[in-house]
Amino acid sequence: MRAIATAVLMMAMPALAAPVRDPVAGAALLRDRALAENSALAIVTGLTTEIGPRLAASVPEAHARDWMAAEMTALGLAKVHIQTFAVPHWERGVETATTIGPNPQRLMLTALGYSGATPDAGLDADVVQFADLDALKAAPAGSLAGKIVFIDHEMRRAQDGSSYGAFNAIRTAGPAIAADKGAAAYLHRSLATGPARLPHTGVTRFPDGTKPIPAAALSVPDAKQLARLVALGPVRLHLVLTPRDLGPGTSGNVVGEITGTGPDVVLTGGHLDSWDLGTGAIDDASGVAITLGATKVIADAVKTGALPRPKRTIRMVAFGDEEAQGPLGGATYLKGHPEPVVFAVEADFGADRVWSLRSRVAPAAAPAVAALARVLAPLGIAPSPLPAFGGEDIAAAVQGGAGVVDLAQDGTHYFDLHHSADDTLDKIDPQALTQAVAAYAATLWWAANSDVEFRPGPPH
Amino acid sequence: MRAIATAVLMMAMPALAAPVRDPVAGAALLRDRALAENSALAIVTGLTTEIGPRLAASVPEAHARDWMAAEMTALGLAKVHIQTFAVPHWERGVETATTIGPNPQRLMLTALGYSGATPDAGLDADVVQFADLDALKAAPAGSLAGKIVFIDHEMRRAQDGSSYGAFNAIRTAGPAIAADKGAAAYLHRSLATGPARLPHTGVTRFPDGTKPIPAAALSVPDAKQLARLVALGPVRLHLVLTPRDLGPGTSGNVVGEITGTGPDVVLTGGHLDSWDLGTGAIDDASGVAITLGATKVIADAVKTGALPRPKRTIRMVAFGDEEAQGPLGGATYLKGHPEPVVFAVEADFGADRVWSLRSRVAPAAAPAVAALARVLAPLGIAPSPLPAFGGEDIAAAVQGGAGVVDLAQDGTHYFDLHHSADDTLDKIDPQALTQAVAAYAATLWWAANSDVEFRPGPPH
Repeated sequence: MRAIATAVLMMAMPALAAPVRDPVAGAALLRDRALAENSALAIVTGLTTEIGPRLAASVPEAHARDWMAAEMTALGLAKVHIQTFAVPHWERGVETATTIGPNPQRLMLTALGYSGATPDAGLDADVVQFADLDALKAAPAGSLAGKIVFIDHEMRRAQDGSSYGAFNAIRTAGPAIAADKGAAAYLHRSLATGPARLPHTGVTRFPDGTKPIPAAALSVPDAKQLARLVALGPVRLHLVLTPRDLGPGTSGNVVGEITGTGPDVVLTGGHLDSWDLGTGAIDDASGVAITLGATKVIADAVKTGALPRPKRTIRMVAFGDEEAQGPLGGATYLKGHPEPVVFAVEADFGADRVWSLRSRVAPAAAPAVAALARVLAPLGIAPSPLPAFGGEDIAAAVQGGAGVVDLAQDGTHYFDLHHSADDTLDKIDPQALTQAVAAYAATLWWAANSDVEFRPGPPH
Repeated sequence: MRAIATAVLMMAMPALAAPVRDPVAGAALLRDRALAENSALAIVTGLTTEIGPRLAASVPEAHARDWMAAEMTALGLAKVHIQTFAVPHWERGVETATTIGPNPQRLMLTALGYSGATPDAGLDADVVQFADLDALKAAPAGSLAGKIVFIDHEMRRAQDGSSYGAFNAIRTAGPAIAADKGAAAYLHRSLATGPARLPHTGVTRFPDGTKPIPAAALSVPDAKQLARLVALGPVRLHLVLTPRDLGPGTSGNVVGEITGTGPDVVLTGGHLDSWDLGTGAIDDASGVAITLGATKVIADAVKTGALPRPKRTIRMVAFGDEEAQGPLGGATYLKGHPEPVVFAVEADFGADRVWSLRSRVAPAAAPAVAALARVLAPLGIAPSPLPAFGGEDIAAAVQGGAGVVDLAQDGTHYFDLHHSADDTLDKIDPQALTQAVAAYAATLWWAANSDVEFRPGPPH
């Protein structure tokens, strides 16, 4: 009788059962628990509604840090703290473009991050169209003096986002190339795959010695319209872009953890900042919410005794200013946290479901990765033979020797929304978001409660 | 030998064959010819690229009339002429809305046509949300003094567009109801079914005695965001809307025809004007292009002798100012053209394929409609038991006694784009547009070369 009573009690109160010590079994347990809750959706809803856009160095980005620190604490993370670092502060201004002629047409466009400005009254100039960046590079020096360069290059959807990797130099490098050839301004077709008439911003870079020129992205429909107009004859535009550099500003990381029993760290997170046009729901409140939601599921399981305290500390970071200065958040994290990062996984590719597992770990860790793949398979995730890419915010940790996996999210529609006003909460599919949380929770635990050496090189 | 040679010659040169006199056989011939060409796409491309937006009473609307008259003439229509009429001239101004608080958020919205204006510096007011128009109507008189009314009512997709018919009083009548209760301004969730973060405009009406208040539509994502913010606590907005009434202006119809052998008229067309945000590609350059493209296919067949001159004149009208003043274009047409309109069919529901044939004709004409349905069936069009609706521009002719059919286009995605900046050429599927041209060409000929009395009532 007593044995039966005990067994019944254990079924009714699983928290009193012995903690699950095997990392693979623990990963499966967390996968299933994560599928049964939706804390990530609450996080992304709160951040994008209560704070909204979170441009690097802006007041709302600072408020988002406080919001996130409170959220991490409320969700059971330990040692929550904020690390600040200096970044340039840039602000969007007026942005309009109108064709000059008997039927003036307004073209919808948006300044690229760190674009130069036109005079407040704007400038009038002729448009010179190029098919791609190579065609622009081939233009003779000085041949573009006083012209508005326009690159009308199409980007198609790709599940793995590779079309963005292939073509984003049109945005990041194109304006400086045009400036060096004397152009008055630079326009390009947004790096976008959707049909909506909304332009997509993003950072552009002017090397030292190149004076920034006004640079903007046209929405896809407007780029097509401008190309049709250019095909009919010379086009002259009135362009007004009045962004401003506001001098040095402050960004920062928010860091919390589930403290492990040993010295090593498993690093995860997403970035807290966003572009200013949307509310940064898919880029990257979702990534923060997925990794924090996963960490919360783990914290709950540890707190109730379903899982033991992990061997390695799981450190969750909501990184600052990924969009503009890129590596600064990750580098700042490492500077303030000298504990060895043995494994890292980042979330910065939207809110859609994870479809592929890629890894870059020590050869001896391959059987462990295969075991993880079996835990993730019921989520519809297939292992890939391709190496993991990592990501901007964990790049410094990976360069420092950490093993890494990509839980690759489906990016088929990511660039429909990315960096545009359309990056808003309503675009998120809650079921897909929850699937991603389950994948991250399983993966973090599998790495954190493990003795496997993931680092591909000699210890650093 | 000679008979064979003649037969071979007739096959090789069908234009020399005797004209097809049976109206149903002629309709089938035109259906197939229309499927083999794409003149409608060229028309909509030219109009939306060379002219662009065509707001009633604007300079581009006047240029569009000249463009259209030249196009009709070039495509072989006879007696091409322009009828002008007076309309109010209204112009959009600045339009911004920002939440007031620690994290100001910009909401994307657009003034409704004929909206009142805020002061140039804007106004600050608290938001009062209502679920629907009935809830607003139930608010006590004076209870909304100084408030911004916000109706957050969802509209779902419907193939026949009926959800717009059901809910558009939220836009047309809501602002005046709010004004009568003392509201400072009026906002509503766009009458839109798509996810894009673009607001949808449209006309609103203030009866005599009601002073116009600022009235605008929020994009769907912004309406959802505002509703979430209201749920968190009181929301105060800074609203700037500076549209202007410019006094009386001029709009007009462009009229052309294929002259018939008898006195009666078959009337068709779409509207030339558009809202100012997009280029009016689906609303309604497509309708003009479909009906003009259909007329052009008929004109070609008559010119080459494949078809005889029709018994009834096919009159094609590109109507002015449908969007704001509605019936004026149709009434002006009738005033200037006293010939009896025995049949009418309009195109003002986008660029998608025709899926349904509805009719409202004399009972004795039912067999003729059944014959038309057989001609249209290979295009995937099914006859409907519902009566035809007609449309704004042919309403006066239908009220005057004309028989009418609807070649109902698929409206599932029409309100994703309608009245928004997203109403652009790239949204048009050329194959669907061509299918619609084929349906209109067949229908116009079937009605025009017929002796059937379509008019449902006693002769007018």
